[in-house]
Amino acid sequence: MKPFSFHNPTLIDFGEGTVNNLARHIKPLATKVLLVYGGGSIKKTGLYDQVLQQLTEIGIETIELAGVEPNPRVTTVRKGIALCRERGVDFILAVGGGSVLDAAKAVAAGVPYQGDVWDFLIHKAKIKSALPLGTILTLSATGSEMNGNSVITNWELKLKKAFGSIHTYPKFSILDPTLTYTLPRDQTCNGIVDMMSHVFEQYFSLTTDTPLQERLCESILQTVIENGEIALAHPTNYEARANLMLCGTYALNGGMISVGVQCDWATHGIEHEVSAIYDIPHGVGLAILFPNWMRYVYRQRADRFVQYATRVWHVDPSGKSADEIVLEGIAATREYFNRIGMPATLKDVNIDETHIDQMAKEAVVFGKIGSFKSLDEQDVRAILRMSL
Amino acid sequence: MKPFSFHNPTLIDFGEGTVNNLARHIKPLATKVLLVYGGGSIKKTGLYDQVLQQLTEIGIETIELAGVEPNPRVTTVRKGIALCRERGVDFILAVGGGSVLDAAKAVAAGVPYQGDVWDFLIHKAKIKSALPLGTILTLSATGSEMNGNSVITNWELKLKKAFGSIHTYPKFSILDPTLTYTLPRDQTCNGIVDMMSHVFEQYFSLTTDTPLQERLCESILQTVIENGEIALAHPTNYEARANLMLCGTYALNGGMISVGVQCDWATHGIEHEVSAIYDIPHGVGLAILFPNWMRYVYRQRADRFVQYATRVWHVDPSGKSADEIVLEGIAATREYFNRIGMPATLKDVNIDETHIDQMAKEAVVFGKIGSFKSLDEQDVRAILRMSL
Repeated sequence: MKPFSFHNPTLIDFGEGTVNNLARHIKPLATKVLLVYGGGSIKKTGLYDQVLQQLTEIGIETIELAGVEPNPRVTTVRKGIALCRERGVDFILAVGGGSVLDAAKAVAAGVPYQGDVWDFLIHKAKIKSALPLGTILTLSATGSEMNGNSVITNWELKLKKAFGSIHTYPKFSILDPTLTYTLPRDQTCNGIVDMMSHVFEQYFSLTTDTPLQERLCESILQTVIENGEIALAHPTNYEARANLMLCGTYALNGGMISVGVQCDWATHGIEHEVSAIYDIPHGVGLAILFPNWMRYVYRQRADRFVQYATRVWHVDPSGKSADEIVLEGIAATREYFNRIGMPATLKDVNIDETHIDQMAKEAVVFGKIGSFKSLDEQDVRAILRMSL
Repeated sequence: MKPFSFHNPTLIDFGEGTVNNLARHIKPLATKVLLVYGGGSIKKTGLYDQVLQQLTEIGIETIELAGVEPNPRVTTVRKGIALCRERGVDFILAVGGGSVLDAAKAVAAGVPYQGDVWDFLIHKAKIKSALPLGTILTLSATGSEMNGNSVITNWELKLKKAFGSIHTYPKFSILDPTLTYTLPRDQTCNGIVDMMSHVFEQYFSLTTDTPLQERLCESILQTVIENGEIALAHPTNYEARANLMLCGTYALNGGMISVGVQCDWATHGIEHEVSAIYDIPHGVGLAILFPNWMRYVYRQRADRFVQYATRVWHVDPSGKSADEIVLEGIAATREYFNRIGMPATLKDVNIDETHIDQMAKEAVVFGKIGSFKSLDEQDVRAILRMSL
């Protein structure tokens, strides 16, 4: 185990009907709110009205930033920052999935910053303060509801980059599993892959002597695997939706499951390059790339992959070589993604080799990526080719 | 899963040498500090000097509350409150194990309160504010370093009671596993039993559909069981000490492993009555009582105990009845406690039946205790008699 620091000050209010607690949470923190949301599904479901009514009743003025994209754009973030400054907003409320929450965090950090918000994404500036923000989550996936991370796309530069800061942890996040009942099937699937991938990035590590962290990761993976299929078959099964929501939050809440562990994050880096150019959902990119990354790197530490295969997928190890066990575990991962209907190859989402060199180059623009196996441009290109 | 709220704002700084970060953590928060510690072992180890030097270097004035007892007394807490008021203390720094931390929390809550601090323990008053506090942990056990709980003994009234508040979460806790190298063997043992017991209280529950929480509990139990014996055999094994320390913190950090779960806490309640009268270490009382509580209550939900036996102790279920599997799991628990040298009966610690009626009566003074099986005075008496 390595030394670590852990600090996660977000308050979680979890359960059916917790949206009704919004007024209580936001009242001590806000007078003028920027309400951030996406494509308008919250209007169809009635959630928008529920939120507005509570804010109005406690005398909070609301300004709106609507239409946040699935891969949220820096142009939208800049629009939000300008709105906050013009109108004297003192609190950001994000209602939606990870993209909406990520955009809200970037707005929150951008308002008190003199320069352009993109500086935070390209490591040109460090976040020193942010407007306070709260969230109402409508999709289990990114963990953004309980961490300080944000991923933003610069469509002009064809770049998708991330920041993380203690200043952009939500003050509160309202997690009502029933809000995910009406999700389109593909969004539930993308969420399942996203949360599993977050665990993979923390679990496949060269750090030794971390038995608790490994088991916490395996706990989340097993619970997602079991409940993912139940939620897909029965979209209004409360328990399956609640279990998925909790897993999504715990999978990436400031590193609770991976304290003292050197994490990898190479596959996320590669995926960001793919979706920066092709605008495919993050979960789709991860489902295609992760099994290939696994096959490319597993020999760095086959024992961790043996543990993954046996503990998570219950692969029977008897009479098999380590390689055979590992490959069965990776195959089980791929089969699960297939079973829930995720694309398996870049070809499945109409991506050919045209931009592979460009994506590989951009993925390592700040240097090699990953720690389980440190990947250079050639490695990234190889993994992308395996994924064609 | 039940609805829940979770909020744990404590910053954890974990690893060898993190004591050297004290000045950095405390500087923005304090000008005049009450330094709370126990019997003086921190003077022998040099930790006291390390702390004092850092505080002096950044110009912080220090007032001392020394001699906090293993079962901390309300009289000592009152002394600390008086000191804080007289000297204008604005921050409490606890250096020690759970007892020292608990006393520090009670002092922190008592300072701004007009009445007597004991009011918080007997539910006569609710904590509305507290002085900020930080901790340096020297013993893995109670989780007090990352929660708002405190257990205080009133020796005059022969009562041991607890409070919990969001206001008494430490602002920071410094966790350096090397500080536990020099612990007497019995204190390491008590800590092991204490953290396992914390998990038991959250794991044996009637709440259904909590697969993640159950696995998180099992993860901690398995890791404590493995690393406890290593740490006892090799007291300076860093990894074993680090794993135990992390387990102790995660076992009771505001309910992270049991969000949405109805917890029990009856055995803790009974143990508090035993150690309020006999002043035995908390871990000793728990080691004696828990296997007996298990045998008394398991039929309420045998399947959870079957899961415990098979997943935590790897009991082979083939050809056995549920009762047999359960009893094997309970026996394995008892054998583990025996193996690390814990007393098995009240007789082992010179307690006879003299005060059993009094303890049983006091345990249910606020009403029945426990939720896995709701225990009345007669049930408590029965469990105490099984433990003789």
